[in-house]
Amino acid sequence: MSEQPIIRRRQVKTGISDARVNNAKTQSQYQPYKDAAWGFINHWYPALFSHELVEDQVEGIQICGIPIVLRRANGKVFALKDQCLHRGVRLSEKPMCFTKNTISCWYHGFTFDLESGKLVTIVANPDDKLIGTTGVTTYPVHEVNGMIFVFVREDDYPDEDVPPLAQDLPFRFPERSEQFPHPLWPASPSLLDDNAMVLGMHRTGFGNWRIACENGFDNAHILVHKDNTIVHAMDWVLPLGLLPTGDDCISVVEEENGPKGLMQWLFTDKWAPVLENKELGLKVEGVNGRFYRTSVVLPGVLMVENWPGDHMAQYEWYVPITDDTHEYWEIIVRVCNTEEERTKHQYRFDRVYEPLCLHGFNDCDLYAREAMQNFYYDGTGWDEEQLVATDVSPITWRKLASRWNRGIAKPGRGVAGAVKDTSLIFKQTADGKRPGYKVEQIKD
Amino acid sequence: MSEQPIIRRRQVKTGISDARVNNAKTQSQYQPYKDAAWGFINHWYPALFSHELVEDQVEGIQICGIPIVLRRANGKVFALKDQCLHRGVRLSEKPMCFTKNTISCWYHGFTFDLESGKLVTIVANPDDKLIGTTGVTTYPVHEVNGMIFVFVREDDYPDEDVPPLAQDLPFRFPERSEQFPHPLWPASPSLLDDNAMVLGMHRTGFGNWRIACENGFDNAHILVHKDNTIVHAMDWVLPLGLLPTGDDCISVVEEENGPKGLMQWLFTDKWAPVLENKELGLKVEGVNGRFYRTSVVLPGVLMVENWPGDHMAQYEWYVPITDDTHEYWEIIVRVCNTEEERTKHQYRFDRVYEPLCLHGFNDCDLYAREAMQNFYYDGTGWDEEQLVATDVSPITWRKLASRWNRGIAKPGRGVAGAVKDTSLIFKQTADGKRPGYKVEQIKD
Amino acid sequence: MSEQPIIRRRQVKTGISDARVNNAKTQSQYQPYKDAAWGFINHWYPALFSHELVEDQVEGIQICGIPIVLRRANGKVFALKDQCLHRGVRLSEKPMCFTKNTISCWYHGFTFDLESGKLVTIVANPDDKLIGTTGVTTYPVHEVNGMIFVFVREDDYPDEDVPPLAQDLPFRFPERSEQFPHPLWPASPSLLDDNAMVLGMHRTGFGNWRIACENGFDNAHILVHKDNTIVHAMDWVLPLGLLPTGDDCISVVEEENGPKGLMQWLFTDKWAPVLENKELGLKVEGVNGRFYRTSVVLPGVLMVENWPGDHMAQYEWYVPITDDTHEYWEIIVRVCNTEEERTKHQYRFDRVYEPLCLHGFNDCDLYAREAMQNFYYDGTGWDEEQLVATDVSPITWRKLASRWNRGIAKPGRGVAGAVKDTSLIFKQTADGKRPGYKVEQIKD
Repeated sequence: MSEQPIIRRRQVKTGISDARVNNAKTQSQYQPYKDAAWGFINHWYPALFSHELVEDQVEGIQICGIPIVLRRANGKVFALKDQCLHRGVRLSEKPMCFTKNTISCWYHGFTFDLESGKLVTIVANPDDKLIGTTGVTTYPVHEVNGMIFVFVREDDYPDEDVPPLAQDLPFRFPERSEQFPHPLWPASPSLLDDNAMVLGMHRTGFGNWRIACENGFDNAHILVHKDNTIVHAMDWVLPLGLLPTGDDCISVVEEENGPKGLMQWLFTDKWAPVLENKELGLKVEGVNGRFYRTSVVLPGVLMVENWPGDHMAQYEWYVPITDDTHEYWEIIVRVCNTEEERTKHQYRFDRVYEPLCLHGFNDCDLYAREAMQNFYYDGTGWDEEQLVATDVSPITWRKLASRWNRGIAKPGRGVAGAVKDTSLIFKQTADGKRPGYKVEQIKD
Repeated sequence: MSEQPIIRRRQVKTGISDARVNNAKTQSQYQPYKDAAWGFINHWYPALFSHELVEDQVEGIQICGIPIVLRRANGKVFALKDQCLHRGVRLSEKPMCFTKNTISCWYHGFTFDLESGKLVTIVANPDDKLIGTTGVTTYPVHEVNGMIFVFVREDDYPDEDVPPLAQDLPFRFPERSEQFPHPLWPASPSLLDDNAMVLGMHRTGFGNWRIACENGFDNAHILVHKDNTIVHAMDWVLPLGLLPTGDDCISVVEEENGPKGLMQWLFTDKWAPVLENKELGLKVEGVNGRFYRTSVVLPGVLMVENWPGDHMAQYEWYVPITDDTHEYWEIIVRVCNTEEERTKHQYRFDRVYEPLCLHGFNDCDLYAREAMQNFYYDGTGWDEEQLVATDVSPITWRKLASRWNRGIAKPGRGVAGAVKDTSLIFKQTADGKRPGYKVEQIKD
Repeated sequence: MSEQPIIRRRQVKTGISDARVNNAKTQSQYQPYKDAAWGFINHWYPALFSHELVEDQVEGIQICGIPIVLRRANGKVFALKDQCLHRGVRLSEKPMCFTKNTISCWYHGFTFDLESGKLVTIVANPDDKLIGTTGVTTYPVHEVNGMIFVFVREDDYPDEDVPPLAQDLPFRFPERSEQFPHPLWPASPSLLDDNAMVLGMHRTGFGNWRIACENGFDNAHILVHKDNTIVHAMDWVLPLGLLPTGDDCISVVEEENGPKGLMQWLFTDKWAPVLENKELGLKVEGVNGRFYRTSVVLPGVLMVENWPGDHMAQYEWYVPITDDTHEYWEIIVRVCNTEEERTKHQYRFDRVYEPLCLHGFNDCDLYAREAMQNFYYDGTGWDEEQLVATDVSPITWRKLASRWNRGIAKPGRGVAGAVKDTSLIFKQTADGKRPGYKVEQIKD
């Protein structure tokens, strides 16, 4: 026992390998993306479905740490910063509108013009010298085919620079059919098409928007879905995964005045299905899946073409609420030119697509995203993840998002989620309420 | 598309306006108030109603981040620091008193003299050299008309300097009748009057004590109450608000040896009712309200004279528990000289004042205060709020409080709420328990 | 009133007394212990009872901030770091094992060898260059008499240096009978004995592991138990406490290759029962208790000999999960050589020891530990506690633990509890779930 043993340190094979594809140099190419915990600002985001905001209704939401109040007046939707410039309460908590073109704060009557955001009067102080000298930021709104989009911007982002909504939406067809042909389906429908029918849902995901977004077009996560009911109901036989066959497996799109994003050449010879893993004794025969193609554009919009059925496209957004919550949007777009088509599609949506796809299938994705949250939230994951060949998709996305975003949102200040551990949040939590996207309004 | 457009930055009207009344110079005059997140120390605060502490009962509370244990022995109430000097547990969690003049720690038997706080013995270690060399801080107690007040002090604040309770209570009448006459009601009753009957309640508010306090005497928040049942039950017709007519709308009281505070000349010609807002097409006719007058004194005590009924005054405290919770006290004071008067008043309190005023009417205030919490908690609101003419009340209060407070409480250490996100709090929250004021005692 | 009174500052007797035994010099002798908020690493800890991990079962736990996945394959238990090196999800959340000697990540199919932790394949990417170049840390496992122990180590701690389990378990008898004789009972049973029957339970305690641990062998906390049912059911009459009679009341054990710890000479003449406290008028007559002896060894294992019945020993661990949660283990060890003895012991355990001792009696300890958490969590308690003669036990422990621990665990990174106030935790809390030890698995 008195002899000092010679300690032989083993060769450690548990550290970060030089063989990972995201080495320091690669990471430096997407540093802006690593900084964008609160999202990219000066972009179009979905705010609400049209049916969630009927005439004179007021709703409060939060995007990229910015509180936003929406009101529909005379059919038109307006969006303003939802934080009274006086004492900071949210206008949406207890909506008070005396005219069709204003919204007043329920606390002290500060009244803002819906169109310009200017402080136009104070209910019981109509001659105050502050009136006319200040206001709240307004956000451009675009409503189309049942969806309300808001251009979430910095306070000094000029109206003149607001791009059209189409620049922040997925690639459109047939205008891109030549650029991105696919032999297996006709031109995919777009949200902006005439008679586009949009059905879907949105809910809060409890993780950062980036790790949510990266899951959507990740070609290596097919395993997560192998036990889903839709897969078995359809008698699909999925491959183990898809592998890129060369550098041209993804096209990056960076044309001026168009959406910035990437298109993946899935179900072409640029991605090979993997049918066997000898090490594990796995072998797939008679592959029989659904063909689809994924693309993603800034500020983080997924399109899955030819999914979940023929003549359809699924869009997804992962709208940043705070740095650790996002609003997960899933919609299915289909052009329905007759009332009969609409009725039939709605019926199938209610019975198949919503329960088995938007839930069911995509519930698994929601779970997978939350499962990454601890690893990434304190920065560990961003530095230490070990990515591989199939991660060409997120890496390409990170780089292009770093180059083309219109601004990195600053951490929220003076808003819900800026400080996460206030007693007010504990009170709400004790009452069974989770952090969320919409403002809960007071009932008198 | 190849032409670079000329970007015209718009004239932003959404920033902080030079026309706000709380410019940097004004803010510097109340910097101590901005620093007082944990409250003002070395002041008298209400701790419990007398009926909450019967003979031999022990209760633990927290004020200004200081844990305090109260015990009634031989009718007298004692208050000590509620943190055993040995291992820091709260004596009140499992009260153990072997004699009428001591309290012992339930964990290791450290025993303190109720009067002096000295460590007088250790149950199973009666000869330890620590005994007699240390102790816990005691807090002077004043019990009057059903309320127990505690002088919450720093550990080295001398007994000799403790002021009488009256210095931290609202202005008394008729001694102030000449200074503050009011034609519409007789001299207001005081908590300290003989036969004063005190009825009320207290509960935890989830926001900083200062934003709670400022709501109480804010003359511009009348809108919040327009739909309250008491207003309609009484057929009141409220003006839109009240506007100061000159610099003398508020009197500041800073006499030596008296309470330091402000008195507002409401329902005199120094405040004009606003009956119309042309911009919004609002007009009030046949105003028919209840006349009242508000004043506030350090450490943050509101008095509403002639409210909620004749011969009454409502007092409120916003006792700091932590930097983001306060105990909200509401009491109604009325002098009742006969048993019959007392019975009658109690009856009306139970059926009208408690449900419709202390709840009902004041529930709206509680909500409004919590609505400001996000804006102020991380400092944003204190710097960026844009105050107007009617905010003369809070600004006057902030300045005088900055001049006359007896100390700024240090952030809590080693106590509940010093760190807000411990797993212990998450455990309690998961069990449905909100952060609060009173210690929950263990049942064996 | 115009005369300025002479302010006499009182002699404060509420500060930290020079008579406390843990002065600055003493504290410096256990600084490493003060730094060990996340536990001591490179030690053996209990992970699960054997019956919690049947063949092919997978469970995830967390010790010292390290996520660990356990799997039983062909009867043998394996333990690996439970954080996929790819995107950081926990393997245990949705166990996926294709072979008996691997575990695969359910998200992207990264597959690890159970024995070595090496990345041996990726389900759908079997030729990736990362394979074979990296892996996850493995943890040595020792399963004995119904308990699974894991050697929780730093990533680069060599296999060769892993000590036998016995070095991190309580002193064994009869091999120590000469060193630590006790006249009142025969040699105590050990967990490692042939035919040792181990019955017990584990649950999460909401406080730091150190303050939990110190309670176990603290001879001055007897008061906490005076009202326990087991005490009265047994007609025990407890002394007020136990006082050391000299410097030799505790033996420190620091032999090479053995457990490092301390043995207390309870119920010998080195500790005197205290029967009276004159100051408080307390006197105990006819003392009639249960004789026992406590010892503690690194990394924090309590043994109570001759407790809770004859021929038994109770062991306890306070396994660090994070810096503010620990897994509280209580087991009772008894050698049962026949099936009849086992059956009889199980019967008595179910009816007496589990409800009245492990619960009942020890529930009080659990409470007491949580009661200290606020004082110690922000560091206040570690600096300001005022310890006395009877605290010789924790002080001795702190010093020896500072000298002999095999490493101080670093604060958790990228794991549950590294950041405590994420919205993900608030979501779980709103759903009524407390922070805990075991990973909750997804049901498809």
